[in-house]
Amino acid sequence: MEPLHSDIPSLASVGERALIERIRSRVPPHPDWVRIGIGDDAAAVEPVRGALEVLTTDTMVEGVHWDWRYCSAGDVGVKCLAINLSDLASMGAEPRAGLLSLSLRSDWPVEEADAFLEAFAGTARLQKVAVIGGNVTSTPGPMSVTVTLTGSVRRRRVLTRSGGRPGDVLYVSGSVGSALAGLMWLRARGERRDESTDSAVAECVARYRRPDARVRAGTVVGRNRAANACMDLSDGLADAVRQIAEASGVGATIEAESLPISGGARRIFEEHGEDPVLAGATGGDDYELLFAVTPRRRRAFEAAWRQARGLALSRIGFLTGDPAIRLVRNGREEPLPEGFVHFHS
Amino acid sequence: MEPLHSDIPSLASVGERALIERIRSRVPPHPDWVRIGIGDDAAAVEPVRGALEVLTTDTMVEGVHWDWRYCSAGDVGVKCLAINLSDLASMGAEPRAGLLSLSLRSDWPVEEADAFLEAFAGTARLQKVAVIGGNVTSTPGPMSVTVTLTGSVRRRRVLTRSGGRPGDVLYVSGSVGSALAGLMWLRARGERRDESTDSAVAECVARYRRPDARVRAGTVVGRNRAANACMDLSDGLADAVRQIAEASGVGATIEAESLPISGGARRIFEEHGEDPVLAGATGGDDYELLFAVTPRRRRAFEAAWRQARGLALSRIGFLTGDPAIRLVRNGREEPLPEGFVHFHS
Repeated sequence: MEPLHSDIPSLASVGERALIERIRSRVPPHPDWVRIGIGDDAAAVEPVRGALEVLTTDTMVEGVHWDWRYCSAGDVGVKCLAINLSDLASMGAEPRAGLLSLSLRSDWPVEEADAFLEAFAGTARLQKVAVIGGNVTSTPGPMSVTVTLTGSVRRRRVLTRSGGRPGDVLYVSGSVGSALAGLMWLRARGERRDESTDSAVAECVARYRRPDARVRAGTVVGRNRAANACMDLSDGLADAVRQIAEASGVGATIEAESLPISGGARRIFEEHGEDPVLAGATGGDDYELLFAVTPRRRRAFEAAWRQARGLALSRIGFLTGDPAIRLVRNGREEPLPEGFVHFHS
Repeated sequence: MEPLHSDIPSLASVGERALIERIRSRVPPHPDWVRIGIGDDAAAVEPVRGALEVLTTDTMVEGVHWDWRYCSAGDVGVKCLAINLSDLASMGAEPRAGLLSLSLRSDWPVEEADAFLEAFAGTARLQKVAVIGGNVTSTPGPMSVTVTLTGSVRRRRVLTRSGGRPGDVLYVSGSVGSALAGLMWLRARGERRDESTDSAVAECVARYRRPDARVRAGTVVGRNRAANACMDLSDGLADAVRQIAEASGVGATIEAESLPISGGARRIFEEHGEDPVLAGATGGDDYELLFAVTPRRRRAFEAAWRQARGLALSRIGFLTGDPAIRLVRNGREEPLPEGFVHFHS
């Protein structure tokens, strides 16, 4: 982040309780199923009768999951919620309640914290997340944000990774590789703060900075029981294909030509000497959804998709009885690379 | 923590997926209300019919909430769960599901991670917490642990901070100030690794390192609807009294002579030149419970307390219509000091 000037008000000048008050004043008003919200030892909510409750949590660490050279406090505020919304979407669950845990440096400027909170609260409002609690603490080191979300889904409509069967058609929402392409463009730009005037590039940068979780698509597919398996693309398409195949005890074949890689992403990959297919298939941070659909349910699936409000849908391959994971390009097979994992030496 | 030797296997040599596998293999088997546990994009559980769901989250940061000179990885594993269990207890809620989010340095020795996980899983088993998911990420800076817990409580049995009324008697469980006294003893001992052979001191150290959340006491009081308000003592008794009074729109008077300060804690405070009453009232990390009880429910409250299995109970003061917060000692009033807050400059 920018060097700090001592005349900028920081969290140290505000204090913990005032920071909690700043959160409380920004988040949307509670729906009536929230019985106890921010301000007690814990929150209390009415569960949805007859539905499963879905729970997910994700942490973003400064310097690991975001870099102040490439994004703003507002971007982090949107993204920390979007990555969790994406997990709910992949289970077919409607978002309900959220908990926000912040570990912040006390020299962080208050206006940065406010920009983060405005963006977080705006996304919560848009996606109908009731922010019911959380935690704030100071840290001497990299800051971090942990969001926990709950969602609701009818028992027989929940989507999992493990329901895939040989012969299922694989579909992916939106486009793949755009977030990685956006990050590549930002890295190459270095310290310069100017934005691209090329709309295809700007779209990749936006996908990296402020992903849009596919909540509506996930819930529509779940509601119509139109897919056997689903997973989000947080660690990239190749990783998601592998995870669904492994959890379902099957293999998969991906067709290189059918991967939805945007013109902008393709161009950025090529300018950096990367193979667009491999970069698109392994780039993380996409937050699209991968579905496995029984061939006889394809029509129902595609019909349900029309309710997803114009979101692109691509048929990219199929599951196989043979456990191998294959990428087919120009009629020839090649290995599908692995995605990103933490703690790798 | 100890300097690292390069021949000690670290998380970098294990990788993210193997670490998740180490978590999964240690946590207790899932009860049948857990429909989807660790391993999918999110977890899914059956809610308790007719009950409120209580949610809480707390983060511990290395160097802020723990210091490797004074505690072990196992201590952190117990404490990160206990501080959240204490929040459930203060609402009268029975623990149900837990999510564990770890931000770890990749040079952290695997055997330390295992010690943390064993202690965490042991506490989860003891307190009947189903560990259904979470998150692991690497961090270059201080490590941190965020635990999110859900619990269950019948609608009319939930305990809050805001139900106190003038005239309510204030009770506190166990003892106050022991954790602070334990920390003072550890700090004075400095780098030496020997433990105290004095059982009164050892008890204070244990309260600091491995607090025991008062889950049974909280649920018993909630079930009997025996208290008007409750809060845990995470930031000390003085803070809890202030918070209950503020949330309830009342004041409070605390009687110095009735504060349950253990002999060991009293001795440590005196050896450090601290006033035992003020240190006991403001020391954080106690994780006891403070209750406000209508005078005519005192007998019911004390009868219910017998189900709390021998946990001490002390009557320490009362709520007042006048909004002042008073400490009365030897018949004279003095101000009740504030507790600890983050981000104070």
